[in-house]
Amino acid sequence: MEWKRTHNCSELTTENTGDEVVLKGWVDTRRDLGGVIFIDLRDRYGITQIVFYETDENLHQLAEQLRREYVIAIKGIVEERGEENINDEVSTGRIEIRVEDLKIYSEAETTPFEIKEGIGTSEELRLKYRYLDLRRPDVQENLVLRSDFYKSTRDYYHENDFLEVETPVLMKSTPEGARDYLVPSRVNPGKFFALPQSPQTYKQLLMVSGFDRYFQIVKCFRDEDLRADRQPEFTQIDVEMSFVDEEDVMASTEGLMKKLMKDTVDEDIEAPFERLTYEEAIKTYGTDKPDTRFGLEFADFSDHVKDSEFKIFSNTVEKGGAVLGITVPGQGDMGRGAIDRLTERVKQETGAAGLIYIKLNEEDGVKCSVEKFLTEETVDAMVETADAEMGDLVLILAGPSPDVYEQMGKLRLMMGKEHDLIDQDAYNFLWVTDFPLVEYSKEDHRYHALHHPFTAPHPDDLDKLDDEPEEVRSRAYDLVLNGYEIGGGSIRIHNRELQTRMFGLLGIDQEEAQKRFGFLLDAFKYGAPPHGGIALGVDRIVMILAGGISLRDVIAFPKNQKAQSLMDNSPDYVDQEQLDELHIELKKDINKLDE
Amino acid sequence: MEWKRTHNCSELTTENTGDEVVLKGWVDTRRDLGGVIFIDLRDRYGITQIVFYETDENLHQLAEQLRREYVIAIKGIVEERGEENINDEVSTGRIEIRVEDLKIYSEAETTPFEIKEGIGTSEELRLKYRYLDLRRPDVQENLVLRSDFYKSTRDYYHENDFLEVETPVLMKSTPEGARDYLVPSRVNPGKFFALPQSPQTYKQLLMVSGFDRYFQIVKCFRDEDLRADRQPEFTQIDVEMSFVDEEDVMASTEGLMKKLMKDTVDEDIEAPFERLTYEEAIKTYGTDKPDTRFGLEFADFSDHVKDSEFKIFSNTVEKGGAVLGITVPGQGDMGRGAIDRLTERVKQETGAAGLIYIKLNEEDGVKCSVEKFLTEETVDAMVETADAEMGDLVLILAGPSPDVYEQMGKLRLMMGKEHDLIDQDAYNFLWVTDFPLVEYSKEDHRYHALHHPFTAPHPDDLDKLDDEPEEVRSRAYDLVLNGYEIGGGSIRIHNRELQTRMFGLLGIDQEEAQKRFGFLLDAFKYGAPPHGGIALGVDRIVMILAGGISLRDVIAFPKNQKAQSLMDNSPDYVDQEQLDELHIELKKDINKLDE
Repeated sequence: MEWKRTHNCSELTTENTGDEVVLKGWVDTRRDLGGVIFIDLRDRYGITQIVFYETDENLHQLAEQLRREYVIAIKGIVEERGEENINDEVSTGRIEIRVEDLKIYSEAETTPFEIKEGIGTSEELRLKYRYLDLRRPDVQENLVLRSDFYKSTRDYYHENDFLEVETPVLMKSTPEGARDYLVPSRVNPGKFFALPQSPQTYKQLLMVSGFDRYFQIVKCFRDEDLRADRQPEFTQIDVEMSFVDEEDVMASTEGLMKKLMKDTVDEDIEAPFERLTYEEAIKTYGTDKPDTRFGLEFADFSDHVKDSEFKIFSNTVEKGGAVLGITVPGQGDMGRGAIDRLTERVKQETGAAGLIYIKLNEEDGVKCSVEKFLTEETVDAMVETADAEMGDLVLILAGPSPDVYEQMGKLRLMMGKEHDLIDQDAYNFLWVTDFPLVEYSKEDHRYHALHHPFTAPHPDDLDKLDDEPEEVRSRAYDLVLNGYEIGGGSIRIHNRELQTRMFGLLGIDQEEAQKRFGFLLDAFKYGAPPHGGIALGVDRIVMILAGGISLRDVIAFPKNQKAQSLMDNSPDYVDQEQLDELHIELKKDINKLDE
Repeated sequence: MEWKRTHNCSELTTENTGDEVVLKGWVDTRRDLGGVIFIDLRDRYGITQIVFYETDENLHQLAEQLRREYVIAIKGIVEERGEENINDEVSTGRIEIRVEDLKIYSEAETTPFEIKEGIGTSEELRLKYRYLDLRRPDVQENLVLRSDFYKSTRDYYHENDFLEVETPVLMKSTPEGARDYLVPSRVNPGKFFALPQSPQTYKQLLMVSGFDRYFQIVKCFRDEDLRADRQPEFTQIDVEMSFVDEEDVMASTEGLMKKLMKDTVDEDIEAPFERLTYEEAIKTYGTDKPDTRFGLEFADFSDHVKDSEFKIFSNTVEKGGAVLGITVPGQGDMGRGAIDRLTERVKQETGAAGLIYIKLNEEDGVKCSVEKFLTEETVDAMVETADAEMGDLVLILAGPSPDVYEQMGKLRLMMGKEHDLIDQDAYNFLWVTDFPLVEYSKEDHRYHALHHPFTAPHPDDLDKLDDEPEEVRSRAYDLVLNGYEIGGGSIRIHNRELQTRMFGLLGIDQEEAQKRFGFLLDAFKYGAPPHGGIALGVDRIVMILAGGISLRDVIAFPKNQKAQSLMDNSPDYVDQEQLDELHIELKKDINKLDE
């Protein structure tokens, strides 16, 4: 019925010269040269030049109708190009096809934007016509990379004896952390399923069942107010292992990353990865996901300035705050105007109250913006602690803890980007460990789990669980790549009593715990192995590997920041009949919107 | 922190004799023999016998505490068993471990049912304690098989240049066919997402985007009234290819099946598979998913009996019905009592009005239950057409078409099972082709697509599309294995005008079509390749390969027939606050239930 395609548009070379071939694809570009029509025929694999000569009049007339994005099949003979026409930038650049027959499968209207790399079209238009946006070679490459990523990941876990198990998408709502997406049940009136924020409880149950090593690449869902880099549905590599400690999970994950980086972007990376405790990360970089592709580590001046006459410094330290500095290399001669503008930006973007600096340059020597309040020894001590050299600029923030660390973290990133200190070719993996188990929420008047309620407390800190819970470290670990948190995991609680205590600490009493997590607590009664695991963000990692700037660059059909799909206009209103069957109705004020 | 596990419970052999090893797992059984304690230690991989001698009193006392399902780690020395204790049914049956140290990770209460193969416990109890049910070796084997199945499938498609692309779970509701599961949107008040019944439109858009070959193993959802072999969420292998016809998709799918059968159950199967048109399947087996592991093909007696005096026969044929027979081998001497019971069952289970038969046995010769109304020639002609031999029983149904075919199909299956005619070791694959494009629904007073609205009509039948739509064949094909429909697909419409006509035929006018499927219709404007694909039911196929009788046997955490998870009691009521945020409320009568 159809002509059989013999090759794709990237395969033919001079070795095929003289062969009769059938190619199928899209008209990418068309040139009419003195009656001879040249067309670049495009498919997912590449581009091949096809040529219509005037010798066959009917064929030539048909070819004259062809426009960009027409879908065609051609039959023809492979011919070598003349020396002057060779294009070694494409794999097929030394041949062309003399067309002998043509079929038009589909005509095409003019597309709302051009099908080519790096266009300036608004994202809104691109999302509306996502099926055209997906024709652009760079977006196609991203999805090819993503497909390779899946394969590499699954190969790794299968090779290492992990079982791939699917867990339910329709599950129980256990609001803790982010909001659940809910699904009304038609056959169980008034009841709802929730979409998984993660298969956490299921994977732990699989360990209790004795599956030993589990993995899954799985869709998860969070109904959050979307930020630039969030999607309502996202994909994670979900892993759990029995009879392991932190070292086992980290080593296994490092193995995956080594393989992934090799398979997808041909990078050899070193393992084991660098590690920082949570405290070290905050003290050094002001964040628990530091970008370690550049330095600018914090210097702590608090001890130097705690007795200084400069009240902003001494009061800050006295109240438990800190005075921190970073040394920006080569910026020691920044002018007053530039520093003023920087100060304004620092206030706006980091929330810091002000910016203090020490400039080191040949002209002025060592110049501190508040030097009249500081002794020379103090300034010298600061310069030494900051490891600053002639030509450098030391930027200083003072403020209450932990805010000042976060502010300085932002300033550090700002400087790293502005002064090109970041090695764009580097892939810096980093483990952050020893997180606090809980943090106190002033809003809710209770403790929240920093990771989730199933994370095991550090055994050395168990005695502080009741009286000083904020001092308890957890057995959690995050994986950071180039300043992005790409994964997080922990050793879990596998003991009913400890899990119940943990729930209690989080304000979930025994009755409530039994109602919401009874199945897990009960499972622990029948022999539970020590276990732990990790979840890795597929979208985020692929985005980094693709050099993308948005998760939407690496998702075939993404939602926008209002959780809408502009292409098919979803979510959308539904028929009243559908709602009736689900035993729900819209709230009164919404009904009006619908009319 | 932990002892490092050196081996799993299936690995150790006499080659390890003398080695110090660490094993971890569950206490499967325990025997106390004159002070020496033998324990079978179990993990996912196997069982190893470990032995506690009385020489170490502390250790022995600790060992005495061990009960079934305790989770432990042991350190010990591998020793050869004495000849008399060798058990070659397990891989570790020639060794045992002399335990030197023991750690108890978790005690265990007595489980509500025994952890062993093939227990008689009620499914309800097993589903409630699914995490214990999953410890049973046969259920574990099913999930291992399923994991292998995923790997084999993905390897096949990656090897054949298919791209793995994830499509959205939160999509647009397009009620057509089964009911959608809906998800209220919090940030778009009054609007709803739907969970995909299949990624059909997305995969077609990927073809329009030029991805050429797509596959995905993907969860899909149907809110149906559940039958024995349905789950609200199910998994399918989803495939789409560009520039193909039926032969390409079928050949590609056969390649997958060959590999799958080899990789998972070590079976070599023949391809290409047998094919039947829809009409042939119905005429021969009374179903579009015939089990071809046994014969009992229908004989059509209509021509022989259309002029007979037996009014039930002649009237049936006159009104366009049919008189059909099947020949059950070796049952020619079935007694009157047995035949009466069979007749009752046939009426009840197939809906047929009655059962007529011809017995062929040495004692009575050829004996027809209505022979007084039929000539001898007619009976002889029926016997010949039915290919019946001495000793056989010909069962005959007469009735309107198409009901009588369906009834006879059920009777055929009944006989096949009862008389052990089905080769339980066979895997019979079959393609069914040339389905009708649409069928008329008397209930809805309109045509429904037999597959879905995107299925291409057969080009030879296009002229009948407006006036005789029921006569139009589609380019759809179903894959059948041992009487189960395991997959279905088609060549799709890739032309805006034809798709619009098709929607019109289904009662969806242009405005409605644009509202619901405008994104697809618009996509066809910009150059769409011919394309087609298939979707294969993972749960069903794995069930058949596992020799299971229910989909629940091969799903880690299945729902029951009320779409409930008994383990975690989902779906469940949710907080009023959650509903408020989603701008929905329960219908008044439901609210009362909640109180």
